[in-house]
Amino acid sequence: MQNFVFDCKTKIIFGKGTEKTVGENMKALGSKVLFHHYGEGYIKECGLYDVIMDSLKTAGLEVVELTGVKPNPEVGLVRTGVEICKKEKIDCILAVGGGSVMDSAKAIGLGALYEGDVWDFFEHRAPMTRMLPIGVISTIPATGSEMSDTSVMTNDEGHLKRHIADTVLRPAFAILNPELTYTLPPYQTAVGGVDIFSHVVERYFTQEPEVDYTDRLCEATMRTVIKNLPLVMEDGKNYAARAEIMLAAPWAQNGLLGMGRIEDWGSHMMGHEISGIYNTAHGATLSIIMPQWMKYVYKDNVDRFAQYAVRVWDADAGWDKEKQALYGIEKTREFFRSVCVPVTLKEAGIDESRLEEMAEKCCLNGPVGGFRPLYKEDVLAIYQSALQ
Amino acid sequence: MQNFVFDCKTKIIFGKGTEKTVGENMKALGSKVLFHHYGEGYIKECGLYDVIMDSLKTAGLEVVELTGVKPNPEVGLVRTGVEICKKEKIDCILAVGGGSVMDSAKAIGLGALYEGDVWDFFEHRAPMTRMLPIGVISTIPATGSEMSDTSVMTNDEGHLKRHIADTVLRPAFAILNPELTYTLPPYQTAVGGVDIFSHVVERYFTQEPEVDYTDRLCEATMRTVIKNLPLVMEDGKNYAARAEIMLAAPWAQNGLLGMGRIEDWGSHMMGHEISGIYNTAHGATLSIIMPQWMKYVYKDNVDRFAQYAVRVWDADAGWDKEKQALYGIEKTREFFRSVCVPVTLKEAGIDESRLEEMAEKCCLNGPVGGFRPLYKEDVLAIYQSALQ
Repeated sequence: MQNFVFDCKTKIIFGKGTEKTVGENMKALGSKVLFHHYGEGYIKECGLYDVIMDSLKTAGLEVVELTGVKPNPEVGLVRTGVEICKKEKIDCILAVGGGSVMDSAKAIGLGALYEGDVWDFFEHRAPMTRMLPIGVISTIPATGSEMSDTSVMTNDEGHLKRHIADTVLRPAFAILNPELTYTLPPYQTAVGGVDIFSHVVERYFTQEPEVDYTDRLCEATMRTVIKNLPLVMEDGKNYAARAEIMLAAPWAQNGLLGMGRIEDWGSHMMGHEISGIYNTAHGATLSIIMPQWMKYVYKDNVDRFAQYAVRVWDADAGWDKEKQALYGIEKTREFFRSVCVPVTLKEAGIDESRLEEMAEKCCLNGPVGGFRPLYKEDVLAIYQSALQ
Repeated sequence: MQNFVFDCKTKIIFGKGTEKTVGENMKALGSKVLFHHYGEGYIKECGLYDVIMDSLKTAGLEVVELTGVKPNPEVGLVRTGVEICKKEKIDCILAVGGGSVMDSAKAIGLGALYEGDVWDFFEHRAPMTRMLPIGVISTIPATGSEMSDTSVMTNDEGHLKRHIADTVLRPAFAILNPELTYTLPPYQTAVGGVDIFSHVVERYFTQEPEVDYTDRLCEATMRTVIKNLPLVMEDGKNYAARAEIMLAAPWAQNGLLGMGRIEDWGSHMMGHEISGIYNTAHGATLSIIMPQWMKYVYKDNVDRFAQYAVRVWDADAGWDKEKQALYGIEKTREFFRSVCVPVTLKEAGIDESRLEEMAEKCCLNGPVGGFRPLYKEDVLAIYQSALQ
């Protein structure tokens, strides 16, 4: 087990009706709030918008709104947010939505307390020392941004996608009401579930020995997603199953499952290149890439893949390890297919024409992945194996 | 799943050599430190005392010491600590040791910011609104106090043992170096391990339905203790196994495993009465009582006990549930016996003479236990079944 620091201060407020507590929870963070959200559709249709505004006003808070967040959040809107915060003397941010809104809010919160341009943080030209306190109401269990120390941002001008991580980026609180996900469409539910699952996989497959407890915690999280994701696909209003998925999302990504481990993240890197060019949903790039990555690297630690198969997929303990390992990989792919997400590039409408370019870009800063370092030719081979 | 709030801000600093960071970590909390510890034996013999003092001084901190904490910490020493804090204008506390020192430090931290007598908190006559910030270096994985929201205190004068819980009681950071537990004697190691295991059991056995994820997290924690406790009993310097136990301790008790569940705690209540009269180690009261409690209540939810047996003890999935349930209970008792802790009152030198009195006191404020409310006659029956 590696030495590590776990430093996560996000308070979880979980369950039915908890969105009504947003006013009192925000009040603990300040008195003038930037309310950041998508600005259309769901939040107004379902009445959530009114509940939030009522709660904020009842708590005596001043509210400024900033809407228009898009699926891959852009630094342009963040700059607008930063300006508003400075001009209006905002002292806390409320993000309502999925990972995009939360990541956008984090960037705004950083920029609001910084003299220079907020993109500096994403180019690692400025240290992250403070952020306006943020509260979130998550409506899409997926990225885990509601409790994580990360923000992913796109810079329009240069088509750059950048990722930053620091514990300063953790929200102060996260309100999680599974009922708010009842109307999440099946495809978004599925790619969100795959994203959660993938955050565990990136941590589970490690060459670090003697990580019993976190192995078990990872397996617990994966089994929870495997059991409950099909249930919510079947019935979007299954509270119990929605609750399990909603609870698994932050814990899959807040650092608990990575304690003492060397993590991988190669599949995420390969997936980002696909999204960058084809705008494929993040979770769908993972359902395509991850099983192929598994096949490509499993021989580097058959024991670990065999353990995965036995403990997560109930592979027969009597089989030889190679057979178990391959069974686990196949079950992973079948699971993704069962929730109707693509498992080949072809299914996502992607052909071989730009694989070389993607592999090149993926390894621009050197090999990717902690389980086994993957070079350009490895990444290309994985892309090719994922074609159909 | 019940609605819940999870609010745990303790930073974990885990691994070899991490005690050397205590100065910089305390510096973030203040400049004048009350260094609270047992004051004899281990901390000085092993050189930990010097490492800590060096680190604190290097960080430029002023240090006042308060030693003399005993296994069941007493409010008398706490009052002395409170006086010191007020007089010396202490602004943070460092607790080095096991649960007793940490709980004592928490009480001092409360009292230091309160006008009245600190025992008021334990009589619920004063609300817990603030506490001096506390850093801990844990040397005994057991109570989980290093991350928990609780403090248990004894009032000498009236032989009262009281328990308080509020998130304000969480330490700011916990330094956990498994090497510091190498010399922990086998019996203390074992009762500590039982204590950790019992914190999971108290949460696992619930009548709350649809708690998949936390079920799995509980099982992960129990399996980790079951595997690693015998390893550390065999070889106290097995770093990997010591690390697993040291990591499981805070997570078993910081609230993670109880998210959305109704917890039990009947066995703890029954155990406290034994300790109160016979001064039996807390973990040993649990190894005696818990299997008997299980036998007494399992029919109230055979499915849950069967799940426990299959998932935690690998009971044959083909057996009927009753057989599985009884197998799991028997394996629990065998496990405790295998690490040489008592599983009967007789083994702990306790006879039937005061069982009636203990049962009476245990239920003084009504029935105990969330899984099944136990009345005086139930508690007495459990004590009697535990005799030999």
